[in-house]
Amino acid sequence: MSTNNETKQATAKPGDSIKVHAPGTVANLVCGFDILGLALNEPCDEMEIKIIEEPKVIIHHKDNYNLPLEPEKNVCGVALLAMMDKLDNKFGFELTVTKHIKPGSGIGSSAASAAGPVVAANKLLGNYFSNEDLVQMAMFGEKLASGVKHADNIAPCIYGGITLIRAIHPLDIISIPAPPMYVTLVHPQIEVKTSDARQILKKQVLLKDAIKQWGNIAGLVAGFIKSDYELIGRSLEDVIIEPVRSILIPGFDDVKAQSKEAGALGGGISGSGPSIFMLSKNEAEAKAVEVVMKDIYEKIGIEYYTYVTTINNEGVKAIGN
Amino acid sequence: MSTNNETKQATAKPGDSIKVHAPGTVANLVCGFDILGLALNEPCDEMEIKIIEEPKVIIHHKDNYNLPLEPEKNVCGVALLAMMDKLDNKFGFELTVTKHIKPGSGIGSSAASAAGPVVAANKLLGNYFSNEDLVQMAMFGEKLASGVKHADNIAPCIYGGITLIRAIHPLDIISIPAPPMYVTLVHPQIEVKTSDARQILKKQVLLKDAIKQWGNIAGLVAGFIKSDYELIGRSLEDVIIEPVRSILIPGFDDVKAQSKEAGALGGGISGSGPSIFMLSKNEAEAKAVEVVMKDIYEKIGIEYYTYVTTINNEGVKAIGN
Repeated sequence: MSTNNETKQATAKPGDSIKVHAPGTVANLVCGFDILGLALNEPCDEMEIKIIEEPKVIIHHKDNYNLPLEPEKNVCGVALLAMMDKLDNKFGFELTVTKHIKPGSGIGSSAASAAGPVVAANKLLGNYFSNEDLVQMAMFGEKLASGVKHADNIAPCIYGGITLIRAIHPLDIISIPAPPMYVTLVHPQIEVKTSDARQILKKQVLLKDAIKQWGNIAGLVAGFIKSDYELIGRSLEDVIIEPVRSILIPGFDDVKAQSKEAGALGGGISGSGPSIFMLSKNEAEAKAVEVVMKDIYEKIGIEYYTYVTTINNEGVKAIGN
Repeated sequence: MSTNNETKQATAKPGDSIKVHAPGTVANLVCGFDILGLALNEPCDEMEIKIIEEPKVIIHHKDNYNLPLEPEKNVCGVALLAMMDKLDNKFGFELTVTKHIKPGSGIGSSAASAAGPVVAANKLLGNYFSNEDLVQMAMFGEKLASGVKHADNIAPCIYGGITLIRAIHPLDIISIPAPPMYVTLVHPQIEVKTSDARQILKKQVLLKDAIKQWGNIAGLVAGFIKSDYELIGRSLEDVIIEPVRSILIPGFDDVKAQSKEAGALGGGISGSGPSIFMLSKNEAEAKAVEVVMKDIYEKIGIEYYTYVTTINNEGVKAIGN
């Protein structure tokens, strides 16, 4: 693991503390399965981390999600243990977490848990580690949560904005500039486990479908960098994952079709679901999309949360006390 | 078929003529199978087209490739017949072609044959048709040549630069800006038929390979638009098509490895082969790559041509008499 500066010392003194917001994230972005993700300004988790003398990790949760407090079984804890190990266990961390991103929502709850603490700790360490180092540590947390060491939520959570994971071995993360966009999310209160959502995917895909998919990915990336909203909209199409996974989400087809009628550029499953996200060019459209989403889940009779937010270009950020 | 301007009239009078260069093209660009392509400044075909009164297509070839002269069996002819049809057979075309791009080279010989005449004719018609219309007409020629109506050579031949075919139905062509680059090509004089090269591909691919591929395509497009040469180099990787097709090209692995050692950013099979292309940041590296290529085919004992050229940003262009 490389550090920003090999000659730098990791300095922090017991008692030092910082509060951060760790943002929710949307992974996949329809056609970019396992490679694309974006960070949200809402929802986000709140965390306070304190350097302690003893080389151990202490975790407090101020939320009601009944998450395990033993660091080896806690997503935040596993990431912090990975960092402690890199620091030769010279000191420890005490973390207080208030999760607002509901676990299992598909909005990067575990990525926020994994990324927030290590970014926060790194701020206390004078940015001793690079962003890429932090992604590597946070991936231990993601592995605990989903069984897979993936980075498509962690990368945007740490870097902010839209990120591309070009490759995992070795890790190659690219920031993708994009024009301003609004994100409307609906989280229908049903459970879709990431592991189940992964299980139902076919191991093989038709070459002709893969070609369609990479045309759309290339179009989406070009659309983002060229600030071409029309191209972004046309490219938000997934012929491989969505047709399989959307079956697990009641109301999906209606949400997608009616959101586009209401003005959304496009959208689809957020991560592995059950949340659905839609991108819009302006706030009025994003709010019209929210109305559509509410109507649909009221009719179906499933509880839901909605968010209308924007892309978070900073990632995990320090907040006042 | 839409035209640039529905109220415009296609005007051209018998006797009007124009000469054009129709450029060679590199399709696929390693990871962008069937969706990406770029136009070359060399080699290119020379064509002169003349409007004639009688609604028919007359073709003369000044090269020695023994191509059929009946318009229905000639790639240029088929494209021109498609255009004549759109013009309600009000007049005809007489075409004189000197092909410099050897058929079967993998450098877009059939695309130049198909695109050159319709772009040239359109110049005489006051650009009555849009570029997209011209691609549609030229695709008839490509279909005659390879059995498949693909546009990944035709689009860069007509638009110039690097093009993305995001989708075929309906056709969606995106110009991808890119930094200056040199292209070194070697055409080993062996025959690889496009239809054979397509036949040996598996109809299904592993999802995990498809994910690697779309990471690289996204990286390549981002690298082009962001003028990030390092990213372009890292993204020029193909885990799906190249491992299968490169077996048909003697010396391929050596050319690729030694070209990169000589300074190339990367490269691979040009179209369906047998030509191999390499992208370089500057001319010195591109020429060093040419030396490597020559050495390899001298040793193997296969005849070859090489080219050191640049990206052609204009596509088919008018030339003086």
